[in-house]
Amino acid sequence: MTASGDGDALVIFMPSGRRGRFRVGTPLLDAARSLGVYVESVCGGRGICGRCQIVPSHGIHAKHGVTFAPEHLSTVNDVEERYRRLRSLAPGRRLSCQAKVVGDAVIDVPSDTAVNQQVVRKRAEAREITPDPATRLLTVVLPPADMQLPQGDASRIRAAVAATHGVEAALGDPVVLQALQPALARGRGEVTVAVHADAGAAEIIAIWPGRVERALGIACDIGSTTIACHLVDLLTGRTISSAGTSNPQIRFGEDLMSRVSYVMLNPDGLGALTECVRDAINVLAARVAAFAGASPDDILEAVLVGNPVMHHLLLGIDPTPLGQAPFTLAVSDALEIRARDLGLRLNSCARVYLLPLIAGHVGADAAAVALAEAPQREEATTLIVDIGTNAEIILGNRTRVLAASSPTGPAFEGAQISAGQRAAPGAIERVRIDPATLEPRIRIIGADMWSNEPGFAEAAETLGVTGICGSGIIEALGEMFLAGIIGADGTIDGGLTARSDRVVPDGRTFAYRLWPGPVDIRISQTDVRAIQLAKGALYAGTRLLMDRLGIDRVDRIRLAGAFGSHIDPKYAMIIGLIPDCDLADVSAIGNAAGTGARMALLSRTHRREVEGLVRAIEKVETALEPRFQEHFVAAMAFPHASDPFERLSREVPLPERTSASAARAGRRRDRGRTGRGTGEA
Amino acid sequence: MTASGDGDALVIFMPSGRRGRFRVGTPLLDAARSLGVYVESVCGGRGICGRCQIVPSHGIHAKHGVTFAPEHLSTVNDVEERYRRLRSLAPGRRLSCQAKVVGDAVIDVPSDTAVNQQVVRKRAEAREITPDPATRLLTVVLPPADMQLPQGDASRIRAAVAATHGVEAALGDPVVLQALQPALARGRGEVTVAVHADAGAAEIIAIWPGRVERALGIACDIGSTTIACHLVDLLTGRTISSAGTSNPQIRFGEDLMSRVSYVMLNPDGLGALTECVRDAINVLAARVAAFAGASPDDILEAVLVGNPVMHHLLLGIDPTPLGQAPFTLAVSDALEIRARDLGLRLNSCARVYLLPLIAGHVGADAAAVALAEAPQREEATTLIVDIGTNAEIILGNRTRVLAASSPTGPAFEGAQISAGQRAAPGAIERVRIDPATLEPRIRIIGADMWSNEPGFAEAAETLGVTGICGSGIIEALGEMFLAGIIGADGTIDGGLTARSDRVVPDGRTFAYRLWPGPVDIRISQTDVRAIQLAKGALYAGTRLLMDRLGIDRVDRIRLAGAFGSHIDPKYAMIIGLIPDCDLADVSAIGNAAGTGARMALLSRTHRREVEGLVRAIEKVETALEPRFQEHFVAAMAFPHASDPFERLSREVPLPERTSASAARAGRRRDRGRTGRGTGEA
Repeated sequence: MTASGDGDALVIFMPSGRRGRFRVGTPLLDAARSLGVYVESVCGGRGICGRCQIVPSHGIHAKHGVTFAPEHLSTVNDVEERYRRLRSLAPGRRLSCQAKVVGDAVIDVPSDTAVNQQVVRKRAEAREITPDPATRLLTVVLPPADMQLPQGDASRIRAAVAATHGVEAALGDPVVLQALQPALARGRGEVTVAVHADAGAAEIIAIWPGRVERALGIACDIGSTTIACHLVDLLTGRTISSAGTSNPQIRFGEDLMSRVSYVMLNPDGLGALTECVRDAINVLAARVAAFAGASPDDILEAVLVGNPVMHHLLLGIDPTPLGQAPFTLAVSDALEIRARDLGLRLNSCARVYLLPLIAGHVGADAAAVALAEAPQREEATTLIVDIGTNAEIILGNRTRVLAASSPTGPAFEGAQISAGQRAAPGAIERVRIDPATLEPRIRIIGADMWSNEPGFAEAAETLGVTGICGSGIIEALGEMFLAGIIGADGTIDGGLTARSDRVVPDGRTFAYRLWPGPVDIRISQTDVRAIQLAKGALYAGTRLLMDRLGIDRVDRIRLAGAFGSHIDPKYAMIIGLIPDCDLADVSAIGNAAGTGARMALLSRTHRREVEGLVRAIEKVETALEPRFQEHFVAAMAFPHASDPFERLSREVPLPERTSASAARAGRRRDRGRTGRGTGEA
Repeated sequence: MTASGDGDALVIFMPSGRRGRFRVGTPLLDAARSLGVYVESVCGGRGICGRCQIVPSHGIHAKHGVTFAPEHLSTVNDVEERYRRLRSLAPGRRLSCQAKVVGDAVIDVPSDTAVNQQVVRKRAEAREITPDPATRLLTVVLPPADMQLPQGDASRIRAAVAATHGVEAALGDPVVLQALQPALARGRGEVTVAVHADAGAAEIIAIWPGRVERALGIACDIGSTTIACHLVDLLTGRTISSAGTSNPQIRFGEDLMSRVSYVMLNPDGLGALTECVRDAINVLAARVAAFAGASPDDILEAVLVGNPVMHHLLLGIDPTPLGQAPFTLAVSDALEIRARDLGLRLNSCARVYLLPLIAGHVGADAAAVALAEAPQREEATTLIVDIGTNAEIILGNRTRVLAASSPTGPAFEGAQISAGQRAAPGAIERVRIDPATLEPRIRIIGADMWSNEPGFAEAAETLGVTGICGSGIIEALGEMFLAGIIGADGTIDGGLTARSDRVVPDGRTFAYRLWPGPVDIRISQTDVRAIQLAKGALYAGTRLLMDRLGIDRVDRIRLAGAFGSHIDPKYAMIIGLIPDCDLADVSAIGNAAGTGARMALLSRTHRREVEGLVRAIEKVETALEPRFQEHFVAAMAFPHASDPFERLSREVPLPERTSASAARAGRRRDRGRTGRGTGEA
């Protein structure tokens, strides 16, 4: 394909291979973002920061059937020339915020441009949202004050806003009143006001001299482990910048319940935890604003989502009742609060919208996921699972939507696993085990190659191979099962010590040496049990909801959350984490909570939608359900006993087996159906 | 009259003589308060502080036709007995908070009980107001939380409030959300909420365990010189306690314009002035709360009134535009603001209502006075004058109400007067001059007798005779005019030096020695001119409004403000401060702004009323009126030239005059009609 005068063109980004057609004239930065390709921009696309550099490829890419020529990007404009002159640009590089699509192109995103994407695994998804923000900017021009008409300037501004824009808005916040006359003076009668109107009456929340045309908001996903913040242009809907940090509350407790304990045991505990999370948000807000060449004072709105404990701590509410039955929330409704009442340093009058909570353990983050995935819009049945210490499970369709929480424990995040750790560079995230040799191949976070490929040794040298994270555990266990190292009941086959030095005695049981080293990274029997308990709880919760709906399979499965987006769905199915569903309909949806938060930030319609959805969702309390225990036990096996092994083998091409291992597999299958094992070969 | 078993009885309070009939069983403290007799109570009527002591009189009071007997008050109850035992009570004394009316009684209020009334001349007037407060207390009982119904406790409380009381109220303030579950726990499911509902939607602003039945509010009049604060029971309407302080902003400027200058000249000036006035209100709120045995946290609502500069400073708004034409207010509308947004330390979610401002120099205090006096309800035409550095003038009736401000300057408050001072103990407040001898008699603040009566020498010894305050100046000038010392044109007659050593040369003019001493207290020619200018401005403003209404006399005159309540209306008329009106219809209304503030505090109906009234009031800008100057000049004479001297002489019995003085009076009268004088005898 050659360059076309107008119309659109194909753009492919490497190394991800994501591609799409874009109208001629589209800035490459926008094209990348809309495909979910992470290209950083600090200056908001003004050609100042130089962080958005890309390398356009030359030549013919037969595989993609594209001929690329330099003429297929717009010529260097003044802004880019200026940058090149002042800051220098390596040969062959372009600023993607300035370079526009002219014809088909293959664009390499160099690693230094993509550098931040691994640390925070909660990137904003590139989702189209029709803006209907609660905050608008309206500019008015006032004539000079007239002594004959002694009404105050506040009244004159309100009257002008009503006359010019048809909006009746109140003006009563002291901060705005203080800024009013200085703005009129500096703007010589022309001022721009920010008008906020959501569920309540319209109110003027900010005023500036002259014409202002950019309104900023933030969407934050406040996870127990990671907090992510996205800066969004409220008028265009575009995500400008993102930043993340680990949740500093970890110093008070690794997981939510230990933080609740901290509150119970320390008189100042609540204050410390609340201040901690608010500080983190303030830091992130300042950071994303700086990325965009703005200040926190420019942020007029925020939408925050989180699980119930994080939500309550943000509000300064004692979360202790959430630590024990009946797990009563202080508040479950959507809330609209002034940012300063939450100690958040945004614009002085910025408004914060908190999505509603679904139940005692199913939070606003799950509500945000439900908003983003909209199971209630389809005939098909969707299962959404957000795997954390408490897995949040949503199942439903146009007819009914149910939600439950399952106490999976922290095993999926690496806790309780002997070599377990959180996702970080150096953690094993992918595992393959040769069923014949029982030898493993691994991939670690931060390196692009398998351990048997060139370059891995250097990467491992640099990053270390430090442990195994949640997605790695899942794959390890799946592969161990497929290779026959563990049986359906989860017992590591001690007989294999004869075949491979990968299987070793470990106290009274056995372990698999995944990555030998100064300290072995092993999968112990205890590790397997921990995962069995966790997956059992998760599957049982799911099964309960399926029982309620009277179904045995689901049409679509979405794995949510930072953890969920890195699980390979195939392995989730292999180990029996998820119910019967076509593998092609199982996908990771990444940071869907963040997407839902952004949807609510940009559109009041979505806020009303999620409020209605949460009201309609039927909450199932797993602790009260008689069948939970029964499902739980059945679900601990590999794969859980109710799934026909044959169906699974159709989905997953299993390696050739020796007749001995096939016999073992058959015996395991039989034992799997009764749910018991003996540990013998 | 003898004691009656039930029904009511006559109670007379001395020394004021105020009397009324009260139902048997009424506590004497309440009777006193409702008659406007100031009896202090620190403990809120619980028999603890002992400040409310009174002395019931014995015997027959033929003048009042009353026979009093000890049996006409209730017997000493346990509370009073306890006080007597622990703190002792002088013989014959009773605690008026405990002693109840049984039959006719004459009650002496000893001076030590009335001690605080002079320092703050802004007492709450005892006005009947039908309570319709914006804040109500509603108690609900919730069943224990049910895990099957996972809605948050906030929803359950809102539902209970709606079901039990028929009120739909929002609940979203973090402070309330934090208090919610602890209150439910401590109250074992029974909680009381404070629901605030004024112009906007109803909202829950506070929550307590169990049943709470007292809701408190404060009404504050923020004057340039004095700030007064009244603690009010929102449910009964009763004023519980009052406190006042001089406005600490005085250190930044004696009057309003010098404070505005301070803001202009000092980068931190606005912050300092704002913090200053907010601090003062916080101190007063704490004081009135303590008086009532409560804490500032119990104060749920506040109504604040003040002139435009004080209003803006309270809000943190730069008042500089108010210092120059076109004197544009930043805001004139009524406002409802959270107390904490104004830095006021009341209940965390307390609401503050600020009355609307009428115009650039006619403030919320004038609006409060208008609310209290309600000129718009009568056929008769009412003139209300609040005399300060800027006199606020309201004139009107059922048909039209007008308002204007006149730049009288600080002369009426003692500034620009050689011996002038603010009202304080030791200041001359009353003056009489013998027209024959030209000798003066005076009264000073803090002593009950004239200078020619017994006891004055001791009082003067104790308090000093320190200067002359506004009301004293008015009387002095009035008496000087009646005695022929000054002519209609205001010139002090130097020829009188021959007759009395009270009249002395003073540079190129003459002065009247009012009170000789180490430093003479004199009325100089300059003093007279200062008052002439001030009264001229005031009368001119009034005259302009009268022109607009097409009238030459008014039916009623009300003199408002701390200053106004201490002017003798007769003297106001003598010196020509006020227009033609029957003297019997001229009265001082004391702290009408405070009354208006209390009315707005207790009733939403009154808030709507004052908002409507202010919208309807026609604002007249004196600076733009062509006839202002003309009226001003004419009004400088004593009394102003448009009032027939004859009518005045009918109102005011003038002393006999010698033929010479009569001739002089005649010449002065003639000169007065032309508005010019020569200073000759």
